[in-house]
Amino acid sequence: MPTPSDAAFIPLADALADALGPAVVSTDPADRERHASDWSGLQGSRPRAVLRPRTTEQVSAALRLCSAAGQPVVVQGGLTGLAGGASVQEGEVALSLDRLAGVEAIDPAAMTMTVKAGTTLAAVQAAAEEAGLFYAVDIGARGSCTIGGTIATNAGGIRVVRYGMTRLQVLGLEAVLADGTVLSDMGGMLKNNTGFDLKQLFIGAEGALGVVTRAVLRLQPAPRARATAWLAVADDSSLITLLSAARQRLGSSLAAFEAMWPGYLSAITARGPHYRAPLADIATPAVLIDVFGDDPAATDADLRERLEGFLADALEQGWLNDAVIAESIYQSRRLWAIRDEAPAEYSTLFRSSKGYDVSIPIGRMIDAVRVLETALSGAVPEAAVLIYGHLGDANIHVVIGFDAPVEKAVYGRVDDLLYGTVRDFSGSVSAEHGIGVLKRQWLGFTRSAAEIATMERLKAALDPSGILNPGRVVAAPS
Amino acid sequence: MPTPSDAAFIPLADALADALGPAVVSTDPADRERHASDWSGLQGSRPRAVLRPRTTEQVSAALRLCSAAGQPVVVQGGLTGLAGGASVQEGEVALSLDRLAGVEAIDPAAMTMTVKAGTTLAAVQAAAEEAGLFYAVDIGARGSCTIGGTIATNAGGIRVVRYGMTRLQVLGLEAVLADGTVLSDMGGMLKNNTGFDLKQLFIGAEGALGVVTRAVLRLQPAPRARATAWLAVADDSSLITLLSAARQRLGSSLAAFEAMWPGYLSAITARGPHYRAPLADIATPAVLIDVFGDDPAATDADLRERLEGFLADALEQGWLNDAVIAESIYQSRRLWAIRDEAPAEYSTLFRSSKGYDVSIPIGRMIDAVRVLETALSGAVPEAAVLIYGHLGDANIHVVIGFDAPVEKAVYGRVDDLLYGTVRDFSGSVSAEHGIGVLKRQWLGFTRSAAEIATMERLKAALDPSGILNPGRVVAAPS
Repeated sequence: MPTPSDAAFIPLADALADALGPAVVSTDPADRERHASDWSGLQGSRPRAVLRPRTTEQVSAALRLCSAAGQPVVVQGGLTGLAGGASVQEGEVALSLDRLAGVEAIDPAAMTMTVKAGTTLAAVQAAAEEAGLFYAVDIGARGSCTIGGTIATNAGGIRVVRYGMTRLQVLGLEAVLADGTVLSDMGGMLKNNTGFDLKQLFIGAEGALGVVTRAVLRLQPAPRARATAWLAVADDSSLITLLSAARQRLGSSLAAFEAMWPGYLSAITARGPHYRAPLADIATPAVLIDVFGDDPAATDADLRERLEGFLADALEQGWLNDAVIAESIYQSRRLWAIRDEAPAEYSTLFRSSKGYDVSIPIGRMIDAVRVLETALSGAVPEAAVLIYGHLGDANIHVVIGFDAPVEKAVYGRVDDLLYGTVRDFSGSVSAEHGIGVLKRQWLGFTRSAAEIATMERLKAALDPSGILNPGRVVAAPS
Repeated sequence: MPTPSDAAFIPLADALADALGPAVVSTDPADRERHASDWSGLQGSRPRAVLRPRTTEQVSAALRLCSAAGQPVVVQGGLTGLAGGASVQEGEVALSLDRLAGVEAIDPAAMTMTVKAGTTLAAVQAAAEEAGLFYAVDIGARGSCTIGGTIATNAGGIRVVRYGMTRLQVLGLEAVLADGTVLSDMGGMLKNNTGFDLKQLFIGAEGALGVVTRAVLRLQPAPRARATAWLAVADDSSLITLLSAARQRLGSSLAAFEAMWPGYLSAITARGPHYRAPLADIATPAVLIDVFGDDPAATDADLRERLEGFLADALEQGWLNDAVIAESIYQSRRLWAIRDEAPAEYSTLFRSSKGYDVSIPIGRMIDAVRVLETALSGAVPEAAVLIYGHLGDANIHVVIGFDAPVEKAVYGRVDDLLYGTVRDFSGSVSAEHGIGVLKRQWLGFTRSAAEIATMERLKAALDPSGILNPGRVVAAPS
């Protein structure tokens, strides 16, 4: 079905306003401008209209009408995505979930939260905390991103090593298909082997198979004690030995294992006293470890002692040059600033930069990073190369920064080199951030032709007219 | 496409033998008889042939040929399923994965195991243990069931409260579609947000969407210390309070929370000294708790102390009448026998019996059990009603036993009453065991018409000629 022209949109806009109420449908230029682009840097067009439904029924009605009219729809949460999936393409209507928001219920016995898709991650975390519980996913965009967006993109973050990605937190889901069909699986049962687990389809599908409207989330017992340590690692090879040992020794208390390579450490710690490294030695990689304890009888001091035992052994084994354990929450925050707040610095640190988010099988990670560093220093010797990330999940972020503006073709060369290396090492071209539109051309580096063809079969089965998030993840059905 | 007649099968059998080699294709009556029925009690027909491939390529070739001929295929693992999914229907060929077996690799750094589908669960557990690690899924059929079967049915068991179901253990998967397409996602990366996560489709789909041939499994640090306790609970309402408290107090060390209602306790403990209850009080429910510790410095004694603290508080709160902690592995095994070995007794305990496997949202569990017990004692007063199961997962098993043979219609009445109660309480008609063919008529009690229609859309998209496990889970595409 061809997309209707701008003029042909007028009767559809009227029908949408009739069905949803005028307050839900905006064609105001300022609203449309606000909903044009996401955080990826991909400049979007103004959508034809912005739909901001307050109920699942309104989402369903909107999609039914758009489907019938062949009107393409882009789904938007907090617009914090980094793959361009929510930036508007010419002729699309934006369906924003931001007003379908609020925590509906918390069940302390089941340790679950029922929540609407437009609720921010920060609000979910706060509501869990108020109930004496803990929502395990945490990412930098927490204040803006919506829980629906984190589900649609299967968000990760720093706690995956202990709690898993968003997929593991979703016990129930409500989603609306392109034709308006509402699929509601909100029982929130941990065990429910009654046919195909449809909710899995919508988690991480980036809105291309359906629109997430509500969810039942798994909550965790709140951590009762915490400890943080900074490790100056002997050399890059020791990173992997150390990770295995930490897994074995610290078991399920290991709540973060973040690595930073020297290029990252020197660039960030040079940004001023806020980012001062706790140990002078930054010529080799550093690791930041968090441990959580959930025994109410255990104290922070107990956890620090356990961590000390592990670090003493690691020093003796020669895996570490040195290590320091935070003695207070304040010290812990100082250590985390070096890892966590750094992305805010890139724009001042560099005239131009680009970030990558990849996985490499853990056993090949160190070799892959070496190959990458050598290749990048050959191809773009003028660039700073910052490598860091969730080593506990075999996921690294790579930032390439330049002191001067660079031509697009330079990033093209970096893309080829970086994603080529990921392919050579059987890695993933997108560990956390998704495919959207910006990474579609690299999808074949991680997925086989048979897998992509099967994704297209699914897309055609659930969105035969291809109106939903067209061109995101896979090609629209032809 | 109509199913070919028996006579028309001869050229297909020849083609299969040509493509796969004669050793893979058996039409021997004894082989066919062995592969007719699964453990569900549903009597199957002899399959037209038994295919026992040794490689993924052979699975692919077999399915390609059967698809082209419109020949229905039933997939078989260890034949231990309880929903009749692997029992052969008239005219089907059996595709057994039992020779596609073996552990291919264990990666201690990544804590993963690469394994072929036909490997038994017990062999997977043993290989993990040999590497100093732990595979977290455990079910009674471990010696016979295959890992592929546990993936296809998303098996649960007693450790779900701590480690989750099989879905959470699968980091990589290879599956073959009905047309022979091989989908291989065997990187085993924890984080790989590159398009739709196809492997989720095949986990728990009971072979109706594709045949699982290989997998990458997540392994866990081996538990370093264990403790077990038997709790005589004050009354049924206290069960839920106790579960919440155990979750909060014991946190991630809680590795089993199994409840047994009085009807179960009296029936099983009467079976002789092997099943003697550790506390005389069996007029109220009992709970069996396991705690695991993964700190290598912690001892069993430390864990027992932690458990003791929790139990002392629970006694003081009035949630318990009494409790006992196992002082040795031998004592722990004795306690577990009462819960774990009981199913072996049903055939001698009753002349006729039937088991059910359902979930109820945890907040409504106690009411649901009361309603069920009252309704059953009204409808079948002559029956014993045994209720027990994984309360930590809101999953109970219900066994209805009779001292005399009963007519089919009686079980029909029990089915209606039991599944009707589950529907009334928004529960699941199959928590762990799946739908197969035996529970298809109840699928609509847990899933909406829209959900079932969407399952049928998926089935049609991935198996358009409907040759794969026809009639299992959903109706075959028309």
